[in-house]
Amino acid sequence: MRAAVLENGRVAVRHDFPTPSVDAGEALIRVRLAGICATDLQLLAGYKGGYQGVLGHEFVGEVVAAPGQEAWVGQRVVGELNVGCGRCELCRRGLAKHCRQRQSLGIIGRDGAFADYLALPVANLHPVPPTLSDEAAVFAEPLAAALEILEQAPISPSMRVYVVGDGRLGLLIAQVVAMTGCDLMVVGRHVHKLALLDDLGIRTQVDVDGSALERLAHLTGDVVVEATGSAAGFAAARRLVRPQGTLVLKSTFAGGKVDVDLSSLVVDEVTLVGSRCGPFEPALRLLAQGAVIVEPLIHARYDLDDCETALDHAARKGVLKVLVTP
Amino acid sequence: MRAAVLENGRVAVRHDFPTPSVDAGEALIRVRLAGICATDLQLLAGYKGGYQGVLGHEFVGEVVAAPGQEAWVGQRVVGELNVGCGRCELCRRGLAKHCRQRQSLGIIGRDGAFADYLALPVANLHPVPPTLSDEAAVFAEPLAAALEILEQAPISPSMRVYVVGDGRLGLLIAQVVAMTGCDLMVVGRHVHKLALLDDLGIRTQVDVDGSALERLAHLTGDVVVEATGSAAGFAAARRLVRPQGTLVLKSTFAGGKVDVDLSSLVVDEVTLVGSRCGPFEPALRLLAQGAVIVEPLIHARYDLDDCETALDHAARKGVLKVLVTP
Repeated sequence: MRAAVLENGRVAVRHDFPTPSVDAGEALIRVRLAGICATDLQLLAGYKGGYQGVLGHEFVGEVVAAPGQEAWVGQRVVGELNVGCGRCELCRRGLAKHCRQRQSLGIIGRDGAFADYLALPVANLHPVPPTLSDEAAVFAEPLAAALEILEQAPISPSMRVYVVGDGRLGLLIAQVVAMTGCDLMVVGRHVHKLALLDDLGIRTQVDVDGSALERLAHLTGDVVVEATGSAAGFAAARRLVRPQGTLVLKSTFAGGKVDVDLSSLVVDEVTLVGSRCGPFEPALRLLAQGAVIVEPLIHARYDLDDCETALDHAARKGVLKVLVTP
Repeated sequence: MRAAVLENGRVAVRHDFPTPSVDAGEALIRVRLAGICATDLQLLAGYKGGYQGVLGHEFVGEVVAAPGQEAWVGQRVVGELNVGCGRCELCRRGLAKHCRQRQSLGIIGRDGAFADYLALPVANLHPVPPTLSDEAAVFAEPLAAALEILEQAPISPSMRVYVVGDGRLGLLIAQVVAMTGCDLMVVGRHVHKLALLDDLGIRTQVDVDGSALERLAHLTGDVVVEATGSAAGFAAARRLVRPQGTLVLKSTFAGGKVDVDLSSLVVDEVTLVGSRCGPFEPALRLLAQGAVIVEPLIHARYDLDDCETALDHAARKGVLKVLVTP
């Protein structure tokens, strides 16, 4: 089969890649559509210290084989990316996505979605409602990640909330947070990206040089979501959170380590919440209901054969979602 | 009156310091006993960028004047240290301890407790139960700070919890956390300090070179409390917290900034909780009930005239609480 393989820091599309074999409990899935995420770009740049294999973890596909569970065959599905060992303390406590021996589709130890086929345990799959297009369903994974915020930091209508960052994930987070009825402001650097939120009635603030931040910092937020993955974004988000408020970290940081004033967190009693993968079922439901708008986020679509170009395109400044079709 | 005054990085006991004047709503308090805390030592070392004035914020005293509220006169009291402006958004929301214009007794803009007298608003005072000795009551402030942990991070009997640090505050935190019935382990560097907890039936682990940490890290905790205020302590605490667990930061860090792997917080969905001053009423109640043992923590007692020597003593390695008597 064809697959976009990351090897030694470079991606190449191979046509002779072996189709994954599937054991009992697993499904072989023909990829219909996949999405490029910032994590893919970070993996290309060496994050996670050298994942080698097929990239890609956002996908919608069709089950073509599921040994012992044939009812799945023919179903259109999306899938959760983490596969725990099933035996350790974390797996037994229902924290398989944090299993220390886990595989993560296209990220750790398991070939990903930029390919004709991928394999995942049936337990990871969620059927896609028939009314939902592939172009919307492919957003299930990042939307689930955005929804994780509401699982970890309850947000009520009386709260003031900031989202810092107007990238792929930031625009999904903004829509999810707006659903709560809170007093929301999204701070970003790109007029054309924020305009997508303006169209949805979500308040935004362009801030290129930090002058808007100076003004906003007088009205600190109960909850602030950091969705830039940059040290500057973290510093801005930290300034916007009130004492005893919550700062949700929703993006990994390319360099990993950031200089943090821990004393100020103690003195201001700020809570920092790391947030990663989230629940797929509500993501699919909200997409089917049209409660979250994703189509305007699609900036380009490439054939799998052109996956290298697709990744280059996704890495360009100001570009939102780039899709890959096998 | 006499007062231990911090000026230009040095403390000197002056005998000609003006007795504080008190406005309506305030009380003039004769200090009976005061305690030296790590914050006092950090202020001496220049933390907070140059507080100048009378040091000290842990005290028990007797009200000698309270204009308009004479019922307080003669009462033995402890007092909360933060005085908000009363007008800003934070004060109006009940977060006066986080007011940006706040004074903090002996820390920011208000002369402290290493003196014959101090002044505080009556609203900050708590009467001391008659059965409680001065030597126990003087621990109300740090014990309240320890109790703040349970306000911010609920701990239940089914949880595994680590306290990292066996200093003045760590030993109070350990006793407070032990009350919850959780599976507690206190990790420290000093056999003689940890022995105080062993006597109370609290499990401890001496770890001087990190080898014990290696073993413990296989049994990560649901909640970990960092009570060292050092970068090494933070690193140890971070290793001990499980994915989706909570790391409570209970000490300010002398240098302020620490290199933090924010990406790992995101991936492991760890929550960091900054924690500062806490509730006095339960602190006084628990001290009166004998539920928290403090007397063995007292290592020395000095007259106010010898406050410089007292501070030197408190700064020595392995020394716990040093008291100052005016």
